[in-house]
Amino acid sequence: MRRIRLRVAYDGTAYCGWQVQPEVPTIEGELNQAISRLTKEEIIVIGASRTDAGVHAKGNVAVFDTESTIPADRFAYALNPLLPEDIVVVASDEVAADWHPRHCDTEKTYEYKILNSKFPDPMRRRDTYHVSFDLDLEKMREAAGYLKGEHDFKSFCNVHTQVEDTVRMIYDLEVEKEEELITIRVRGNGFLYNMVRILAGTLIGVGRGAIAPEQIPAILEAKDRQAAGMTVPPQGLTLVKIDYLDEKSK
Amino acid sequence: MRRIRLRVAYDGTAYCGWQVQPEVPTIEGELNQAISRLTKEEIIVIGASRTDAGVHAKGNVAVFDTESTIPADRFAYALNPLLPEDIVVVASDEVAADWHPRHCDTEKTYEYKILNSKFPDPMRRRDTYHVSFDLDLEKMREAAGYLKGEHDFKSFCNVHTQVEDTVRMIYDLEVEKEEELITIRVRGNGFLYNMVRILAGTLIGVGRGAIAPEQIPAILEAKDRQAAGMTVPPQGLTLVKIDYLDEKSK
Repeated sequence: MRRIRLRVAYDGTAYCGWQVQPEVPTIEGELNQAISRLTKEEIIVIGASRTDAGVHAKGNVAVFDTESTIPADRFAYALNPLLPEDIVVVASDEVAADWHPRHCDTEKTYEYKILNSKFPDPMRRRDTYHVSFDLDLEKMREAAGYLKGEHDFKSFCNVHTQVEDTVRMIYDLEVEKEEELITIRVRGNGFLYNMVRILAGTLIGVGRGAIAPEQIPAILEAKDRQAAGMTVPPQGLTLVKIDYLDEKSK
Repeated sequence: MRRIRLRVAYDGTAYCGWQVQPEVPTIEGELNQAISRLTKEEIIVIGASRTDAGVHAKGNVAVFDTESTIPADRFAYALNPLLPEDIVVVASDEVAADWHPRHCDTEKTYEYKILNSKFPDPMRRRDTYHVSFDLDLEKMREAAGYLKGEHDFKSFCNVHTQVEDTVRMIYDLEVEKEEELITIRVRGNGFLYNMVRILAGTLIGVGRGAIAPEQIPAILEAKDRQAAGMTVPPQGLTLVKIDYLDEKSK
């Protein structure tokens, strides 16, 4: 028995998120089905990040155990023809039998994309959130500065979460603009439920002048979801990559 | 009666092209319906470029005549809520009653986008053509040099066209690469049926080594569709803009 790891990119538009649910299309469900078809085994993958409905990924990670003799790096080539075109396995390798994609020290990188233009762009409606009012980039960057570092992010967490420890570390939080496209890129050691979308919504609140950058410390301090900005829609969000720290030097 | 001009952006994926056909969704059909709903008149637009099924636009142009008193520049705002989200009117103005979008001297700019990577990108499957083999950019640029200028482009024209004069002028033909995305950008005084897709297919043939750049003059000379490269798929093609030369200084 070998444990195979996949790096998976997907357009989340058509899916009710990563995690299998009855009767609806999910990324995990499509992967289980394609791998089972390929190996003739009954495969259930273990995913690293259970992305929400409509959220995209360039590099989510999943593992599964198989008796198949297909070389580890060939799974990507063998699986893509069996997957819908909005899900692509971009790499595959073999890991230790006890390697678990969620029980490792990781750094995750997410991007939230905002199209800041008078009219929406029909080609960007699936991967950006359209904002037609002006956003003050300098103020957004100033606010981002207060959010970096280790904080209790309880104010930036969906109230329906069950997690107890809401302290997380943000290593980088950048706000870039190229023509009409604003990209918020965040790298951290873990993210709470809806945290990136609430961070982005709060930065948009700052950009439009509804929240002052200097209010951020008080928003963190409040430990109250009501204190932070709105949860912006899923289509702007992409899980860019997951770095496993024990492998980073490889 | 006023003649209103619209600049229209669209994701062509879901449409059977610009031109109205019975029983299938078309860009023109959606525009006719939305404008008729808005003005309570029976509107049929006149389009500048009848793009093919699956082809996109950032700036196609259409006009219509109306008794409506809506200010010309407000049509964009009034129409977008009545249009599907993959069609966006990005500008509207008033033109002379006899102004016709196809009976003017124009320069058109098209882009053909190629994703040159080992695996396809699920977020770019609607607006790029995926090519997994290596492409030699220098050779493609060398070939582009032979295509620039005024030539008889009969070899680069779908054989089912009925046009008699196949001489066209290409002002610019650039091949750019940014990470894995190759963009072929062409500006000319007019394009024959499928011409940009056959130009792109021929440049891809050059890039992969099937056609030598020095063969281009002979391919033009042949005036035979069989001499040029393949017609590449529509989803890579975008009509970027149409410049009306009598207005260019405005």
